[in-house]
Amino acid sequence: MKYSFRNDYSSIAHKKVLERLIECQNEQNIGYGEDIHTQNAKWMIQDKIKNKSEVFFLTGGTQTNMTIISHILKPYEAVIAAETGHINVHETGAIEGRGHKVLTHKTDDGKLTPAMVLDILKNHTDYHMVKPKMIYISNTTEIGTYYTLKELKELSKCAKDNNLYLFLDGARLASALAISDIDYSDYAKYTDIFYIGGTKNGSYIGEVVVINNKELANEFQYSIKHSGAMLAKGFIASIPFEVLMEGDLYKEIGKLENDCANFLVNELSSLGYKFYSDSKTNQIFIIVSKKLADYIKKEYDFEVWNNINENEITIRLVTSFTTTIDICKEFIEYIKSF
Amino acid sequence: MKYSFRNDYSSIAHKKVLERLIECQNEQNIGYGEDIHTQNAKWMIQDKIKNKSEVFFLTGGTQTNMTIISHILKPYEAVIAAETGHINVHETGAIEGRGHKVLTHKTDDGKLTPAMVLDILKNHTDYHMVKPKMIYISNTTEIGTYYTLKELKELSKCAKDNNLYLFLDGARLASALAISDIDYSDYAKYTDIFYIGGTKNGSYIGEVVVINNKELANEFQYSIKHSGAMLAKGFIASIPFEVLMEGDLYKEIGKLENDCANFLVNELSSLGYKFYSDSKTNQIFIIVSKKLADYIKKEYDFEVWNNINENEITIRLVTSFTTTIDICKEFIEYIKSF
Amino acid sequence: MKYSFRNDYSSIAHKKVLERLIECQNEQNIGYGEDIHTQNAKWMIQDKIKNKSEVFFLTGGTQTNMTIISHILKPYEAVIAAETGHINVHETGAIEGRGHKVLTHKTDDGKLTPAMVLDILKNHTDYHMVKPKMIYISNTTEIGTYYTLKELKELSKCAKDNNLYLFLDGARLASALAISDIDYSDYAKYTDIFYIGGTKNGSYIGEVVVINNKELANEFQYSIKHSGAMLAKGFIASIPFEVLMEGDLYKEIGKLENDCANFLVNELSSLGYKFYSDSKTNQIFIIVSKKLADYIKKEYDFEVWNNINENEITIRLVTSFTTTIDICKEFIEYIKSF
Amino acid sequence: MKYSFRNDYSSIAHKKVLERLIECQNEQNIGYGEDIHTQNAKWMIQDKIKNKSEVFFLTGGTQTNMTIISHILKPYEAVIAAETGHINVHETGAIEGRGHKVLTHKTDDGKLTPAMVLDILKNHTDYHMVKPKMIYISNTTEIGTYYTLKELKELSKCAKDNNLYLFLDGARLASALAISDIDYSDYAKYTDIFYIGGTKNGSYIGEVVVINNKELANEFQYSIKHSGAMLAKGFIASIPFEVLMEGDLYKEIGKLENDCANFLVNELSSLGYKFYSDSKTNQIFIIVSKKLADYIKKEYDFEVWNNINENEITIRLVTSFTTTIDICKEFIEYIKSF
Repeated sequence: MKYSFRNDYSSIAHKKVLERLIECQNEQNIGYGEDIHTQNAKWMIQDKIKNKSEVFFLTGGTQTNMTIISHILKPYEAVIAAETGHINVHETGAIEGRGHKVLTHKTDDGKLTPAMVLDILKNHTDYHMVKPKMIYISNTTEIGTYYTLKELKELSKCAKDNNLYLFLDGARLASALAISDIDYSDYAKYTDIFYIGGTKNGSYIGEVVVINNKELANEFQYSIKHSGAMLAKGFIASIPFEVLMEGDLYKEIGKLENDCANFLVNELSSLGYKFYSDSKTNQIFIIVSKKLADYIKKEYDFEVWNNINENEITIRLVTSFTTTIDICKEFIEYIKSF
Repeated sequence: MKYSFRNDYSSIAHKKVLERLIECQNEQNIGYGEDIHTQNAKWMIQDKIKNKSEVFFLTGGTQTNMTIISHILKPYEAVIAAETGHINVHETGAIEGRGHKVLTHKTDDGKLTPAMVLDILKNHTDYHMVKPKMIYISNTTEIGTYYTLKELKELSKCAKDNNLYLFLDGARLASALAISDIDYSDYAKYTDIFYIGGTKNGSYIGEVVVINNKELANEFQYSIKHSGAMLAKGFIASIPFEVLMEGDLYKEIGKLENDCANFLVNELSSLGYKFYSDSKTNQIFIIVSKKLADYIKKEYDFEVWNNINENEITIRLVTSFTTTIDICKEFIEYIKSF
Repeated sequence: MKYSFRNDYSSIAHKKVLERLIECQNEQNIGYGEDIHTQNAKWMIQDKIKNKSEVFFLTGGTQTNMTIISHILKPYEAVIAAETGHINVHETGAIEGRGHKVLTHKTDDGKLTPAMVLDILKNHTDYHMVKPKMIYISNTTEIGTYYTLKELKELSKCAKDNNLYLFLDGARLASALAISDIDYSDYAKYTDIFYIGGTKNGSYIGEVVVINNKELANEFQYSIKHSGAMLAKGFIASIPFEVLMEGDLYKEIGKLENDCANFLVNELSSLGYKFYSDSKTNQIFIIVSKKLADYIKKEYDFEVWNNINENEITIRLVTSFTTTIDICKEFIEYIKSF
Repeated sequence: MKYSFRNDYSSIAHKKVLERLIECQNEQNIGYGEDIHTQNAKWMIQDKIKNKSEVFFLTGGTQTNMTIISHILKPYEAVIAAETGHINVHETGAIEGRGHKVLTHKTDDGKLTPAMVLDILKNHTDYHMVKPKMIYISNTTEIGTYYTLKELKELSKCAKDNNLYLFLDGARLASALAISDIDYSDYAKYTDIFYIGGTKNGSYIGEVVVINNKELANEFQYSIKHSGAMLAKGFIASIPFEVLMEGDLYKEIGKLENDCANFLVNELSSLGYKFYSDSKTNQIFIIVSKKLADYIKKEYDFEVWNNINENEITIRLVTSFTTTIDICKEFIEYIKSF
């Protein structure tokens, strides 16, 4: 096996993160996120987002989504998501497991629009149906697209106008920061709550929940513990962010990932390959013949996304902090050798 | 500050665990626990427990308890625990959050007995009340006591006779293994399910769920994901156990902890101090004057457990893989200097 | 107001049901469904369905659906329904409130087919997604259509072949029994569980759960109480069924309802009106001008179903045990007078 | 069988309630509690409690408790109850089923005091434990005792001082109104929410939720539907209260029950019998020899409450709206004939 493009969570952590971990190994810290590393990482993030939002460190994406949604919604309230949204498809019912319906809308590109939100609101008007109360979006989306600042502002306005909360899942926020015109401070300004993903962007674990709407932050630690999401060794989840938030490392990781992915897209396009979605981020979806897929599989790992027809499938390639342009060049050469 | 006896989760991880992590940093592994490290750690554990039990790697204690209990019980079924049981007191209602009542019995020493279990069964006889279906015990217990093999066998028999499952919380199993006559293989033999705690015994995170009753293992991965407990980087939780299960390291950590704690107990006893519970494990509960507590606080960190009277309190000291006899000696000297 | 066609639950109960209630008023009966009326109604139903299925009496539709589904499914399991299914749209998230995702498929006529079920199964293949485990259908459906015996058999086979349970919501089973070729005994034969609706078919409250798959009946009373669905005066819910199951009264009510609705459909068709769905049961969906709707509203009550275009809407008329052909004739005359 | 003292829910309904039902049988009413009977009963209750509280009609006690508690509490919040409280013992985990822990305190007489509440608060101080947020009491209690106005005021003050809600379960409020100095208006004044029980006081079903704290009433109908507690024929639950609230019928039923029970207590006391609790309400708990119990069983139905010793048990006798002093006299004669 030469390299795995299967996902962006196949290697332990960025070199600098691991170095820091080793440096701290002889320390003794207080538990449950009340330690100095966690405090420090909070300050660094507040600095980056230019806002005194509340900041909490959780472990993984599904856990973070379920903890946030169950903390905020009343039992009969629902969350609006794209049909392709992670909470709708790939969380084994974790949101419903905490009691909440996910109301979905079909999209072409994995992105919700105010019109879609209004469409759902229009159909949920009385107490015989759930009450939509939150918009859930991901940046980047589950199919590699991303929101622009204009789109985020429009959704934010739509949320405010309709008394909904706006929650943004940032499992792949590094990639989004590197491509979109939405900066850290915009996420703080235009969402009620969002998270900065660590697991897929250089950390071994960790997703940072940033609560901009202060009301929603109240007693959030109770919900973290209640959801089984509180680490005894809280500093384990925050130390990586002390590293990733230093300078612009987090965004640089996203940029590297995007650059590698874009390199692949450009090269493959010029070779005549088509794509399932128009992605400029670190997940790309290439339509290939089954024969080519088999050929690639001999040397590279990837995920089969779906079937196009009898002969063709979509495969997903994901770049990560370990990918380099050289690895990508070698991959393209391999494709050419088919 | 000279040293913190506050808990056994104040340092990142055992030196050998961190070394291994660094060794693996350039690898690419499959996600969600389907990697080779997880497979290897499973085999090592099956070897230790001399049984082909199913083995899963989760993150923390509350999460593990809530995932297991909600996987096994039907909505109207309840779990029996000591009044001091972790699931009853210190999990912010995580078990109830998944729908289940915790039925408790008062104990003198934090340990459940068959008689207590029968007492609860006697009072839950029809469909107007929850149906007790599981016994939950911890080894070591929340107040530092431990079960003997004889006691475990009796509870196991009681469970079988009454059609209950026996679940053992091993958050501090290393300390239990080092003091009690219950060996790894006995846990596999006499419980339906138990877990081998990592967080408090040398790992940065990780609790290993061992399911001996095969029926209960069916589709457990669905419950892990549904509970937000599945790590994308599953290997992060299993690599430490490849180290801890090598030779007898896990148990040796427990032995060191117990030795240090016993040293403290013996020295403090000979100085005339009394204890709140009769602990031979790594948590000890010393009754001290408030003045002495203040004096200790200047140089050592610890947890206040409860108030005895106007002048006296109980403080908890916990030893961990970072404690040494030298540290303990120094502590005793400091006490003597009061 | 001359008459309300708004729904089939606007009058207290069938005359015979109320007479029986008065006859029983001086009795003393045991609570919680352990009384002689409940036993008697069970026997009458077992007789009708020609099967020794377990029989339980609940209060209303949403409650019944939520109690059944939460009793049967494991936390990570999901139920498959038509997009128009009652559990998906009109139960304010009661199913999700008990932890379960409702997986839906678009339909033209409110009816699920095996192909739709397979379509959903095909997309739910591993532990990252919920596990579909139950098919939910309604007879008659939410839009007035009904299943034939052939269709029921096919769904039953599909369920068995794919290890799914088949659950049939019979909120309007009287109307279905009167029009479809599915008899009482077929429901017992081809579903794992179904219910015989009382509220919409002559009783003041009451839905009778019939569990044909014996395994699923185990400890169902615990789930009834756990779901807040157990009446202290259980006989209140069963006495009406002693009346409705006598002779063929229940089905006769359905026939009267259907006859009245068909009369309206035929007359309105011959007047040139179009319908939103092809209903031969007691709910009909007529497309009318907004002006006509306003005119009707002066003398008749009904429900606005949806907007067709700027000038036209669909209105729903529902017949019930209180409707007569004379009432319908008078209504048609009124329409003609527009 | 001469008579059943087994409980207060063995007969269908008070004669006047059934008469009214028959009078209304030809009406058509709007569904889901939006009808004129429900409106009228609301007004009558607001009149009785001298407050414009929000009023809702549910079906049974467990359902009402679970709907209220899950509507009000956040996921990590808990309710405080007497150890004998109905929600703790006899609801098959319905409260936990909605996610909430019931924190209990031992009592001598089934009644909570501010001191007990404070005791629980003292032990729940941080996010590692559930957050107590509601006090639950019943009047009359599960063992026949009752609260005085002074006691209610003290609990109300305790609740306010500690930022807790006070919820009063009035399953047997008629009996309480007849014996205690707490009037309808005091319940509105000193609780945040309470309910007026129908099932055990002359109605066939129905518990009226009265929400005095307006904030808590917001969107309560969503919670009713979400909990499966909304009747399509809402008027079924409110018509009885139009009758019971007329004049002082509800309280008169309570008075008759208490008078009968007190007659039994006095007569039995003078015969030398002892009681398990000091009840002046409609549930009495008599200690009898097993032989006497067997003798009574031949002619009267009752419930065995508990075992006192090898030879003696406690039996519970409950009076209801069907009990008369003559029935009680006959019972005493029967006892004398033993």
